[in-house]
Amino acid sequence: MSSYQSIHLVKRPVTNIEASCFESRSHAVEALQDGEFRVKQTHMSLDPAMRGWMSADTESYIPPVALGDVMRASGIAEVIESRNAQFPVGATVMGMFGWTEQAVSNGAGINIIPAGLPAEAVLAVLALPGMTAAQGLLEIAKPKTGETLLVSGAAGSVGSLVGQIAKAEGLHVVGVAGSDEKCRWLVEELGFDGAVNYKTDNIAEKVAELTSKGIDIYFENTGGEIQQVAIDNMNTFGRIVVCGMIADYNTEQPSAGPNWIPIVKKRLSIQGFTMPDHFDKAPQLMQQVSSYLQAGKLKYRVHVLEGLDSAIEGINLLFSGENQGKLLVRL
Amino acid sequence: MSSYQSIHLVKRPVTNIEASCFESRSHAVEALQDGEFRVKQTHMSLDPAMRGWMSADTESYIPPVALGDVMRASGIAEVIESRNAQFPVGATVMGMFGWTEQAVSNGAGINIIPAGLPAEAVLAVLALPGMTAAQGLLEIAKPKTGETLLVSGAAGSVGSLVGQIAKAEGLHVVGVAGSDEKCRWLVEELGFDGAVNYKTDNIAEKVAELTSKGIDIYFENTGGEIQQVAIDNMNTFGRIVVCGMIADYNTEQPSAGPNWIPIVKKRLSIQGFTMPDHFDKAPQLMQQVSSYLQAGKLKYRVHVLEGLDSAIEGINLLFSGENQGKLLVRL
Repeated sequence: MSSYQSIHLVKRPVTNIEASCFESRSHAVEALQDGEFRVKQTHMSLDPAMRGWMSADTESYIPPVALGDVMRASGIAEVIESRNAQFPVGATVMGMFGWTEQAVSNGAGINIIPAGLPAEAVLAVLALPGMTAAQGLLEIAKPKTGETLLVSGAAGSVGSLVGQIAKAEGLHVVGVAGSDEKCRWLVEELGFDGAVNYKTDNIAEKVAELTSKGIDIYFENTGGEIQQVAIDNMNTFGRIVVCGMIADYNTEQPSAGPNWIPIVKKRLSIQGFTMPDHFDKAPQLMQQVSSYLQAGKLKYRVHVLEGLDSAIEGINLLFSGENQGKLLVRL
Repeated sequence: MSSYQSIHLVKRPVTNIEASCFESRSHAVEALQDGEFRVKQTHMSLDPAMRGWMSADTESYIPPVALGDVMRASGIAEVIESRNAQFPVGATVMGMFGWTEQAVSNGAGINIIPAGLPAEAVLAVLALPGMTAAQGLLEIAKPKTGETLLVSGAAGSVGSLVGQIAKAEGLHVVGVAGSDEKCRWLVEELGFDGAVNYKTDNIAEKVAELTSKGIDIYFENTGGEIQQVAIDNMNTFGRIVVCGMIADYNTEQPSAGPNWIPIVKKRLSIQGFTMPDHFDKAPQLMQQVSSYLQAGKLKYRVHVLEGLDSAIEGINLLFSGENQGKLLVRL
């Protein structure tokens, strides 16, 4: 192949992510320098955090993607040409290659994936989602056996792992998701103790019914009405981990939050976090998540789109909640 | 004296605290049992927490005052009769005696005040306000020299101590209060670096101007519009300590809070607390506060009401913000 395609960010979204934000460009394949290697990407991850990377907001945890640059993404790739002995031809690697068919790297930030691990499991469980779930739940919320966890965005890539790790730790687990099909999957396949369909259930009644001993940990991925209901049902000394607010990322005027009186009355703690602050713990977290995975305690499903260009429209599935499992693109 | 007066809670407030919530009753003085002693109260503290003690809400950190019981309060008293060798006649003591001229105690929860400490300094600095300020600021927010602190309710009993302790710790300190007179007091007398009058200033502009390096710690005593402004100006990894929400205690429908997106983006932590959870640390905190007081670093002022019955109307000064310093009743 003497040329390859990549997708560049050319306009920042205001509310929804429109196709006009992106431009597909063709590149000539250039010769490698010493120490470099070339990869052909096979799987590319689509994640809610991308909405933040596309905006010009400089307060976020990593700088925005510059206009004109290849859109940022993590992915799995195969080394197809190499002048770097640590990354031989044929190796399977993971890294932030972006929305592109090919990339050249000197190895910085690139990890070799052990043979036998399917790319889909790596992106769905061992990569950012699993480390985020483990860091937020185990290191920040510090769950205790017998406690009750409520997790929003429960059928999402992070939420589904949070709930399953919590079950493995002996918690009573209730998830919030956006369809009866997702709710059934949480309870019947993943072993959640209960699930709330925020689009059709009376959220306040259903949460109160399913968390009869109150909520000790609320793992927040979405925002929206569930936030107030969670606060109302929190136990004294409850912990709230704020990992995402996907319901509000695409709105121009973010919705109001709960009043803070219960924070004093119940002495709640609320902690925002993003995994990149804790990358020093990545090896330890990955080991923890791997052990759950090998013990058969973590199920996952992937929603696979086909071909580079499918990312452009496909990313919006994350914000409409239409994706069925970890969203990724097969190239 | 063969009888004494006390004020009993007979009705729970819905919004404002009305005089009809209380009833003054006369009691006959009864003989002491072995181990008991009788006190004549000289000073009684009025505190925002009383609004919570009067409501039937069982989620609060201590049970509500039962209807018919003497209204709860801490105070300073003199032992006037004793069958307990640890509390001899003439001793000055501090305890939760309630809204009453006299009380009988077996010594539980009662502390002897060392000679030479004025009752007003004890109630205004060393009692609940000082321990609350020290616990919230030093133990929870963990300030570092050079950081910026914003404190709401800054002219209040807790807020004024939070700001002064923070100054002693080398922070840049900005307070929010409800009159120009209070703001002048904060800056000219207490040494705050700046003050915002939330009733007349453009809060957003003034806070941004006075906290040009952003806010590292927000100590929340009030709620209201300042909450959103604080969130908007917080630095990454900022800490918010929620000690009170006095602006909302008397409203039937509490106001909405800020959206949670900045909590993720800036990885903020928000921690609600009440001092009674930390009474095990009281001796250590009291020692810390005493050392600041003895070093001349803590100024205070008291707003003194005269006579037991003055508490009934006087408690509302706390919620209108009309009190000028620590509110107490001299009996």
